Amino acid sequence: MSTKGKVIKCKAAIAWEAGKPLCIEEVEVAPPKVHEVRIQIIATSLCHTDATVIDSKFEGLAFPVIVGHEAAGIVESIGPEVTNFKPGDKVIPLYAPRCGKCKFCLSPLTNFCGKIRNLKNPATHQQLMEDKTSRFTCKGKPVHHFLGISTFSQYTVVSDINLVKIDDDANLERVCLLGCCFPTGYGAAINNAKVTPGSTCAVFGLGGVGLSAVIGCKVAGASRIIGVDINSEKFAKAKALGATECLNPRDLHKPVQEVIIELTKGGVDFALDCAGGSETMKAALHCTTVGWGSCTFIGVAAGSKGLTIFPEELIVGRTINGTFFGGWKNDSIPKLVTDYKNKKFNLDALVTHTLPFDKLSEAFDLMNQGKSIRTVLIF
Amino acid sequence: MSTKGKVIKCKAAIAWEAGKPLCIEEVEVAPPKVHEVRIQIIATSLCHTDATVIDSKFEGLAFPVIVGHEAAGIVESIGPEVTNFKPGDKVIPLYAPRCGKCKFCLSPLTNFCGKIRNLKNPATHQQLMEDKTSRFTCKGKPVHHFLGISTFSQYTVVSDINLVKIDDDANLERVCLLGCCFPTGYGAAINNAKVTPGSTCAVFGLGGVGLSAVIGCKVAGASRIIGVDINSEKFAKAKALGATECLNPRDLHKPVQEVIIELTKGGVDFALDCAGGSETMKAALHCTTVGWGSCTFIGVAAGSKGLTIFPEELIVGRTINGTFFGGWKNDSIPKLVTDYKNKKFNLDALVTHTLPFDKLSEAFDLMNQGKSIRTVLIF
Repeated sequence: MSTKGKVIKCKAAIAWEAGKPLCIEEVEVAPPKVHEVRIQIIATSLCHTDATVIDSKFEGLAFPVIVGHEAAGIVESIGPEVTNFKPGDKVIPLYAPRCGKCKFCLSPLTNFCGKIRNLKNPATHQQLMEDKTSRFTCKGKPVHHFLGISTFSQYTVVSDINLVKIDDDANLERVCLLGCCFPTGYGAAINNAKVTPGSTCAVFGLGGVGLSAVIGCKVAGASRIIGVDINSEKFAKAKALGATECLNPRDLHKPVQEVIIELTKGGVDFALDCAGGSETMKAALHCTTVGWGSCTFIGVAAGSKGLTIFPEELIVGRTINGTFFGGWKNDSIPKLVTDYKNKKFNLDALVTHTLPFDKLSEAFDLMNQGKSIRTVLIF
Repeated sequence: MSTKGKVIKCKAAIAWEAGKPLCIEEVEVAPPKVHEVRIQIIATSLCHTDATVIDSKFEGLAFPVIVGHEAAGIVESIGPEVTNFKPGDKVIPLYAPRCGKCKFCLSPLTNFCGKIRNLKNPATHQQLMEDKTSRFTCKGKPVHHFLGISTFSQYTVVSDINLVKIDDDANLERVCLLGCCFPTGYGAAINNAKVTPGSTCAVFGLGGVGLSAVIGCKVAGASRIIGVDINSEKFAKAKALGATECLNPRDLHKPVQEVIIELTKGGVDFALDCAGGSETMKAALHCTTVGWGSCTFIGVAAGSKGLTIFPEELIVGRTINGTFFGGWKNDSIPKLVTDYKNKKFNLDALVTHTLPFDKLSEAFDLMNQGKSIRTVLIF
């Protein structure tokens, strides 16, 4: 029996208030409105950002909310005026919209889209649909969306500019990582840092995004990739994915940037900071060589005090930039799905655990204890 | 009678100690040693950096010292093994060396040279010649060089990697500005920011370097160039050189970056900070558009508290870089001399005063009172 046009009751994880564990509840998911698509989420993975926002470390997040922003699924139904999707399509919902019409979408210089509503606080971006209402209800109360996609729900509604169709034979339990983690780190290396063949790189933070950055550096042809993390248990995997050596700042007798400068006789060509804290930002900038050192900020740490920079640090030839979703315009993602199928890179290694969605709490524990890279939850 | 191989007695301005006015004295200038060239300085202009260092706002500067680093002259004699210069050549001494052999000189990515000895404090760079001695003596005491070129002396000795030969018909009273001010601002726009045709730009600080940046933005084809300075008397000249409008932050009721964002409906494509203070650095970064905003730091203000940056400000697509001597490898300067001759840009407008060298003190007063852009001193 078709569910088209009807409210769907299904399972979702609700964050009722800040700092409290998520509760798995039955929610009602309204049908998609104009230019909206309702999706059945098949697999969703966890990201530190999900944990950070529900701990209310990003100001301004409205509760209750359904978080989750890294997933893959199947179109259940489409709203009026949707032309690019049909029921049954395999899709990845993306928090990076692509309206295709604004000056950003029309420029080759950026993957930004003018539909990103709140620039200063990404946590509050797209907590309601375009018409300023929510499609989720739980216990009679409207529940907010998160980043426009809310993937911790068996069904979700997204704008058709926050969605891409992927190959019919895509493995959803893997390509869900193409919703955030992998393209962000990989693209930061390829598109933002523009790592060059034969270059030296340092990657700070070896979680899912950092390992994806390591993969990006390797695919770009870097000859030396130095991984940095305060958890040495992550080093074996980093090396398997391309890191040529790894450093744990806690095991060193001097700042890690000084060690990297010594190892590389002057500093690396490219540094990528996937952690976002003041210390790693500083280390990333300072470990780059004078002349052409490039430092790319990927991670955003809640409550970070930032990094104080001086012109002297830049006039010697350094560049600082950042990445939003790895610089990919969202319609690049289907190509990455195909690249994965063709074994251009290894997503499998990033998935350390696969659990049923009901074990969400266990998945958070694994992440918070640094025991997982990515846990994929299956509905 | 040839002076070759002999000590030359001539006039120079000595900074005997920090914070004291320069004294014009008779100095002895030793003959050039291996790979050194002795030059007769014909014209030298003043830069804020000269005033800053003698006020001892850069730590580590050794006294007594002969400052000055923006000049043009004629080769008097050459030391052993000098092959690129001969007596009578018109030349510009350059604090940016080019050994031609190091990994930096061999790379197209930078104009840096491995011979720059002190990266952290440019003021202490090349205060002695390669053999760790000075060529200047005054009242029996050795006097330090400054940035390897010390142009506030009628004769000076420089390394042959700190010198370029220019056209025989070059007007030395103008092309002396190609020793620092003009190539720095102009090149920051052309080479570092890489200003694009039709783009919008903001230039903070409308002194010699800032006006040169305005010229660079205009030559690069910018459609809108917003000049910013706290001295509105500089606006007429800025507009004559290419600024389409000018703003004085002291006349505004909100931060200048907010005004620029409003004027440009979202921010400029390129911001160039020629002032180097915390406030202008912040304004320059924040007035750039999300998506592709580029912020180039040019000025270094002594005692600056720097700028605290957060990843959020960069992940939206902004880039920060800096300029060292406008990104020009020093052997590009002769081409700029020819470009000036061919009227590609206007150096004349930057020279507001021409005085005999003896009036150095008056020239400093004009600069410190904001009454001059560049004063050229003639020996």
